[in-house]
Amino acid sequence: MLNLQTVSPLTLTTPKGFKATGIHVGLKRKRKDLGLLVCEGGASAAAVYTTNQMQAAPIIVTKQAMEASEGRIHAILVNSGNANACTGELGLTHAYMSQHAIANHLQIKPEQVAIASTGIIGQTLAIDTLVTGVDQLVASEAEEEADAFAHAILTTDTGIKTAGYQFLMNGSEVSICGVAKGSGMIHPNMATMLGFLTTDATVEPNVLQTILKRSIDRTFNCITVDGDSSTNDMVMMLASGAAKTPTIMLDTQEAEQFEQAVTHVCQELAKLIARDGEGATKLIEVTVQGTDEERLARKIAKQIVGSSLVKTAIFGEDANWGRIVAAIGSIDEPIDVSKIDIRIGSQWVLRQSMPILFDETLASNELAADTVAIEVDLNSGSAVGRAFGCDLTYDYIKINASYRT
Amino acid sequence: MLNLQTVSPLTLTTPKGFKATGIHVGLKRKRKDLGLLVCEGGASAAAVYTTNQMQAAPIIVTKQAMEASEGRIHAILVNSGNANACTGELGLTHAYMSQHAIANHLQIKPEQVAIASTGIIGQTLAIDTLVTGVDQLVASEAEEEADAFAHAILTTDTGIKTAGYQFLMNGSEVSICGVAKGSGMIHPNMATMLGFLTTDATVEPNVLQTILKRSIDRTFNCITVDGDSSTNDMVMMLASGAAKTPTIMLDTQEAEQFEQAVTHVCQELAKLIARDGEGATKLIEVTVQGTDEERLARKIAKQIVGSSLVKTAIFGEDANWGRIVAAIGSIDEPIDVSKIDIRIGSQWVLRQSMPILFDETLASNELAADTVAIEVDLNSGSAVGRAFGCDLTYDYIKINASYRT
Repeated sequence: MLNLQTVSPLTLTTPKGFKATGIHVGLKRKRKDLGLLVCEGGASAAAVYTTNQMQAAPIIVTKQAMEASEGRIHAILVNSGNANACTGELGLTHAYMSQHAIANHLQIKPEQVAIASTGIIGQTLAIDTLVTGVDQLVASEAEEEADAFAHAILTTDTGIKTAGYQFLMNGSEVSICGVAKGSGMIHPNMATMLGFLTTDATVEPNVLQTILKRSIDRTFNCITVDGDSSTNDMVMMLASGAAKTPTIMLDTQEAEQFEQAVTHVCQELAKLIARDGEGATKLIEVTVQGTDEERLARKIAKQIVGSSLVKTAIFGEDANWGRIVAAIGSIDEPIDVSKIDIRIGSQWVLRQSMPILFDETLASNELAADTVAIEVDLNSGSAVGRAFGCDLTYDYIKINASYRT
Repeated sequence: MLNLQTVSPLTLTTPKGFKATGIHVGLKRKRKDLGLLVCEGGASAAAVYTTNQMQAAPIIVTKQAMEASEGRIHAILVNSGNANACTGELGLTHAYMSQHAIANHLQIKPEQVAIASTGIIGQTLAIDTLVTGVDQLVASEAEEEADAFAHAILTTDTGIKTAGYQFLMNGSEVSICGVAKGSGMIHPNMATMLGFLTTDATVEPNVLQTILKRSIDRTFNCITVDGDSSTNDMVMMLASGAAKTPTIMLDTQEAEQFEQAVTHVCQELAKLIARDGEGATKLIEVTVQGTDEERLARKIAKQIVGSSLVKTAIFGEDANWGRIVAAIGSIDEPIDVSKIDIRIGSQWVLRQSMPILFDETLASNELAADTVAIEVDLNSGSAVGRAFGCDLTYDYIKINASYRT
């Protein structure tokens, strides 16, 4: 078992080799809206992007940079307030201008810069404001500057989201930290969410890519807030190599340790995003077991945690397992629906697809907590899958009925 | 072009050969909860059922009756207040008991009786109350009794939903009428929705089945309220033959006329359901054109009208086309996202995937109306598809956070 310790401080600059900053330039009214993360000399980089076919300009530019640099990235520039999506050729020009501005500022090549944007879709980016802002960016290793980066990437989030662990690899201390943003339009497959991870381990881009992708499939891709998926989102991880570990190769014990730690960081960030879902009052954790395949278990878990009726019932602290059953039954591949067990909180409410007596008052009390656990057993195999989400509340409507205006 | 006239009165007993009634027996607190539709001598019957794998007892019993009677149904018994779903063997026994009770009462065979239930999932049916109630059912052709049936099938609906047309077929007047219920847990593929149609045309069960299925795919299966699908729902159509038309055969002009009329009735009922979605203040009609296939156009239209963010924006009267674009891009099959046009109300807001200037005040005013039209053109083909839904509001949360308790 890997001995993971929480890092302190919990910032992107705790792993050696990174500097960060975040400032307000005017893309948002008051709050910080431009962030920079730097690894001088360049880091091995891996990234996973939105599956939405309508991809925003910064996604296109970052993909090109990753390809041109063969996964060696020196800096990530992130703005919030404007997604630079559905902005056509002009938007693409603006994305290149942002990339070139930071490359000039840091005296590096444009293809060594990744960029990301989050915010309103379809409005022209205030490129002059952004480019002027770039010149004010001074990254450092200071905790407060890394914190400023975490703030600069937020939109409707209620606070910053960070996670980090360290462990010993062959005697060297390795740290992995991450920050994320996202609270609405969150759905499996990287929807309106940004995540940035740093580590000081030594790992080549292709190995990092494999490990990051697998970790994301089990974590970020298992959260859903409202079922909508976005044009802009990505998770990028940079490895500086500054911890001077041996180079991590796939299928080794070191790779396994490293992947466990990456998955832990992603898992925590994913839960923080789900818990901070727009208007959410609770985190919902659904575990499905007893299927043949992990993929199917995860799919059913996502279906349950994505059901508007389940989400609303949990907001109402109502142990309405009928809606959970309906969600399971609506899966589009064959399952045996005759022997389902369902547990809400500490109590089983369905056994072999038959309701059993439970204490409604206890159930309501448990549903009033800020984390609600739902467990489903299909009794047809040994695979397990998990998904995370949040309740659907009045405040979700309030936030989203007036986001743009 | 078929000359369709609205029938009057708009009731299931307007087509010749039908009787109906609806009463309160105590499955709901106060409102009518038991309805009966009768075609003495038997009707040709067709039915489409929920695709949810967890099917309620009445669905199982009705499927068996349809098979045993080879699509000749004399009576449909419907209760509201309790769905008799996830009730195991006991629930199935209760469903048979209901079927047998009405068969005894009407002196017909059990397999000539279809049954349907709607309401809370997972609670034991008060079968004694229901069976006692059956003996009080006296169906008639009276308008008020057909109206009572329409009321008896409701749950959270705000009112009855009826539609009906008549037209001349070879000089004979043919009527088609329908009633439906459903306001939450509504999603493509027959989710928590009941629909009953009557006609006095002469048509064999297999032909009726083909025509009903095609009509439903274009109508009921294109509505979505909250993306959840249910255990209980079905649409059943009965043809009495009392209008003495020639028997309608597939691939004839008569069949085409008849299908057009059935589709019209289904379409109106589907729109009424979408408009009455739980907490809804508006009907949203999405038309997608410019695809290769009607299937894909419909799928995209459903994706848009099912997006929580789109639904909430429309509640907020915000012409947030970015969310429409994000919904289109999230379709899981390849489309060309570079030449999309989007119109909200009377104004084009996107042309060739680029935003164009529009009058925001006019847009807000149009979004304040009780019907909102969204049109999307992918400019990649000549197929057209439609879907219907409603906005997502504070009242949806209110209704569903406390439905069971």
